[in-house]
Amino acid sequence: MASDKNWQAIAASKRESNAAKIPEAWRLPQDILKDVHNSSDKNVLDIPRTCGILTDQEIDITEKHDATALLEKLAAGELKAYDVTLAFCKRAALAQQLTSCLTEIMFEEALARAKSLDEHLEEKGKPMGPLHGLPISLKDSFNVKGVQATVGYVSFVSHPPASQNSALVDILLSQGAVLHCKTNLPQTMMTADSENNVFGRTLNPNRLSLTAGGSTGGEGALLKMRGSPLGVGTDIAGSVRIPPHCNGVWGFKPTVGRIPFSGKTPPGRMGSPSSILPCIGPMGHSARDLELFMKTVLDCDPWQLDEGCLAVPWRRVEPVSKPLRLGLILEDPKRPLHPSIMRAMRTATDALRDAGHAIIPLEGQYPSIYETAILAWKFFLLDPAKTPLKYMKEGNEPFVASLATSRFPELDNYEPNLNDLFDMNVERRKIMKVYHDLVVQNQLDAIVMPMYQATAVPHDTYGLPIYTVLPNVIDYPAAAIPFLKASKDLDKDFVRSDIEYLPPYDADAVEGAPCGIQVVGKPMRDEVLMKVLKVIEDVLKPTT
Amino acid sequence: MASDKNWQAIAASKRESNAAKIPEAWRLPQDILKDVHNSSDKNVLDIPRTCGILTDQEIDITEKHDATALLEKLAAGELKAYDVTLAFCKRAALAQQLTSCLTEIMFEEALARAKSLDEHLEEKGKPMGPLHGLPISLKDSFNVKGVQATVGYVSFVSHPPASQNSALVDILLSQGAVLHCKTNLPQTMMTADSENNVFGRTLNPNRLSLTAGGSTGGEGALLKMRGSPLGVGTDIAGSVRIPPHCNGVWGFKPTVGRIPFSGKTPPGRMGSPSSILPCIGPMGHSARDLELFMKTVLDCDPWQLDEGCLAVPWRRVEPVSKPLRLGLILEDPKRPLHPSIMRAMRTATDALRDAGHAIIPLEGQYPSIYETAILAWKFFLLDPAKTPLKYMKEGNEPFVASLATSRFPELDNYEPNLNDLFDMNVERRKIMKVYHDLVVQNQLDAIVMPMYQATAVPHDTYGLPIYTVLPNVIDYPAAAIPFLKASKDLDKDFVRSDIEYLPPYDADAVEGAPCGIQVVGKPMRDEVLMKVLKVIEDVLKPTT
Repeated sequence: MASDKNWQAIAASKRESNAAKIPEAWRLPQDILKDVHNSSDKNVLDIPRTCGILTDQEIDITEKHDATALLEKLAAGELKAYDVTLAFCKRAALAQQLTSCLTEIMFEEALARAKSLDEHLEEKGKPMGPLHGLPISLKDSFNVKGVQATVGYVSFVSHPPASQNSALVDILLSQGAVLHCKTNLPQTMMTADSENNVFGRTLNPNRLSLTAGGSTGGEGALLKMRGSPLGVGTDIAGSVRIPPHCNGVWGFKPTVGRIPFSGKTPPGRMGSPSSILPCIGPMGHSARDLELFMKTVLDCDPWQLDEGCLAVPWRRVEPVSKPLRLGLILEDPKRPLHPSIMRAMRTATDALRDAGHAIIPLEGQYPSIYETAILAWKFFLLDPAKTPLKYMKEGNEPFVASLATSRFPELDNYEPNLNDLFDMNVERRKIMKVYHDLVVQNQLDAIVMPMYQATAVPHDTYGLPIYTVLPNVIDYPAAAIPFLKASKDLDKDFVRSDIEYLPPYDADAVEGAPCGIQVVGKPMRDEVLMKVLKVIEDVLKPTT
Repeated sequence: MASDKNWQAIAASKRESNAAKIPEAWRLPQDILKDVHNSSDKNVLDIPRTCGILTDQEIDITEKHDATALLEKLAAGELKAYDVTLAFCKRAALAQQLTSCLTEIMFEEALARAKSLDEHLEEKGKPMGPLHGLPISLKDSFNVKGVQATVGYVSFVSHPPASQNSALVDILLSQGAVLHCKTNLPQTMMTADSENNVFGRTLNPNRLSLTAGGSTGGEGALLKMRGSPLGVGTDIAGSVRIPPHCNGVWGFKPTVGRIPFSGKTPPGRMGSPSSILPCIGPMGHSARDLELFMKTVLDCDPWQLDEGCLAVPWRRVEPVSKPLRLGLILEDPKRPLHPSIMRAMRTATDALRDAGHAIIPLEGQYPSIYETAILAWKFFLLDPAKTPLKYMKEGNEPFVASLATSRFPELDNYEPNLNDLFDMNVERRKIMKVYHDLVVQNQLDAIVMPMYQATAVPHDTYGLPIYTVLPNVIDYPAAAIPFLKASKDLDKDFVRSDIEYLPPYDADAVEGAPCGIQVVGKPMRDEVLMKVLKVIEDVLKPTT
């Protein structure tokens, strides 16, 4: 429905009502904010610690623990849910002012909820559930009763607040979680730059001139800022892994159907016959936090709430005791690895090999990753009604800049049709068989591969996520592990002059940006991948 | 590829080479065979026992045991694999002569295999696996190395024998099974009369003038004739349940993806974007035999052989100890239950209620089952290339008669397209949610419903299987349980004069035909359904 107001006015009004939910005392001074813009090279990670708005205890709560450690203290009564929530609300408010990572702010509701959880613990003598008192942030597309889910469309700003929770939200609340904010995403969710015309662009706290990634980009920036101990996103091409990679935290895309997906606000049309389906996954600060999320949700029989959720309980599997067998996919010739990522991949695999694990190169044994990504995009573009464009038109809003960078020129004349869809499915199945057979024949525990050919890159240059969409095409679980940082000095040995870097490699522009690797598990073996991640974590000792 | 010969000659030659594989000594005399034709009212179930071709031991082996019992004796060395195989080969040969249930005959290979299994047991002192020495029959669409899989298309008769086993065939063999024959199915597999132009029509051994059902109709007749202790079919609309219902044995359709489906010869185009997918299921003589099949296959990690198979182990669940909560779906107004089926449903639910189980009527709480079946057919007819017709044209063969009865007039002008496919998926999801919520809110263990509105009916009158396709639409596991028989005398109290029976009810034509019920479990809870079936089996005490 087109509004009388122009889109700028609608968006400005939404942002103002948003900003008003940040208490005066939590607002950063102008001398800090003057450097906050998308061409600033500033790293803003230290500002929460130094700005004086957080108490020492709040700094300690937000910086020194992962979610699992916080939950132990919350359950033991060593920390109050109220204090933990207040600390993360304050820090999320700072993150918002520095990176524009939030959409909906629910601080007031969160603090009230935390208070009632503290009372619960005092009265009953035991926590409400395994997530008792833990603040959790959600991608904007999740529905929380009473809160809007505009997913960044101007036309959705006139929509009423959600009347029902997403299935996952009901579960998280039933287990004692506190929901303190929702986070930013890209227009249409189909680009890796989290910019939309309602909430603007999320900046990368490691360096504001770099992308925060997408589509769960707000979460990536918020988590790196430690404005949340645990975040939840969705992923169909890398959306819970790209922002962790860009910002330097952990992300996990489970096998499709394990976490209940229903009751969300979709950015496009429901009912797609695509064989590549979206799923929900956690983002956080440690391997054990990812497992905590998966285990807690699956222990709630989520299939009772969602007809699309697989009724497969979270299996108890033993920690890995034998040396791992890790397949290695290094790079696709169409998207050569930037020096910093090549160094991260080499350093990680060397360290894993040194620790006694087998690295099995798979080079040359799988079809072009670039072509596989094209196939994925053919599935993503199936809707003849082009529903996302319809939503944009209804709001009279322009395209964000990065959408133009998220297309394959090979698909310029692509018109989806039913006949081709049969062939696409056959092609996808062939690809699945290749990876299936590689895993079985080499007895692999997981595959190590890049998350992306580069670190976070300057805004609107990320392009197509060919490395992250591969696990979606074959429906394998996959994790983003932060590891090392771009360093002009250390990376120079990995510069190759005989290849073209896409996007271009600019050592100065990305100095200090987080690097990372991707670890891909076996389908429906999310439980096993968690144990593999812990082994890799022990070797690589990544910090977030 | 069109052949020079006419289709009749090609088919006759295939059938002759088939018939030649039945040893002279196993051939029935003409005075028995003269009554074997599709308008005969004859029940041929007793002929194997009375014709003098089987020894007393062979009669005992084939009639007095289910697969589980046979396997116990085989493993203990009380029965030789060779003797068991010989007994079932002989009886399958008789079944073939009486009902035309077989396609490929593998007696020679089976006997050689059985001999080697006996040697294995003697040498190693232990069976090869949990299926050691058990003859198993397979629907024709399974590939067995060295054997054709024509699936009843004339044009496929010129195809070479399979060069590889289906994934499931490899698994069954690895566990010690003996494969003694493949069984008949309908042209295109999309009708419930197992007739095709290569192998002809399978007759119902309970009464030759009745359909044996489809599409796994050959199995249904073979199992009822006790020419096999365990059969395997495929199901997308009822194909492993309709023939059990028509013939009076057990059948089970698991949740999609649990049994590896790859490496079969499809009757249509691969890569369908349908949301309703085919699956493989067992047919046999007891609830425990269905469980034996499922457990044995899943214990082999079948996902190692098939990239499309869900890596979800067979869960060990306790037998049901509490009274069951069973939802009841009685009938759809468009296809009222024939008197015999109404009596079977009433008698079964009364008996279950008397045994202390709760029967919860669901009438009026779900969408039209008839409309749901129309939706399913829209998914089945998605292929714009109409590949099955192409295969038929290549063989210059005509349609079998029943195909004309397996269409919805509502879909006469249906042309599938991508845009509608989105809406079809949304509609399907709504239906899934209705059943999901009914099961959750009523805390149901299973749903009891009809298999079909009638017993087996005269050839080419079965029409559309609206009751069996429902579990396929929502992807719930479902079993066919044989129960009672049509009896003009007992059924007359259930005749209603104010409704129209479709197909028409003719008490004399179906006298003595098996009746049955369908029991639908919860998705991915195949393990639990097995326990529920055993409870129901204890109450209803069905015989096969």
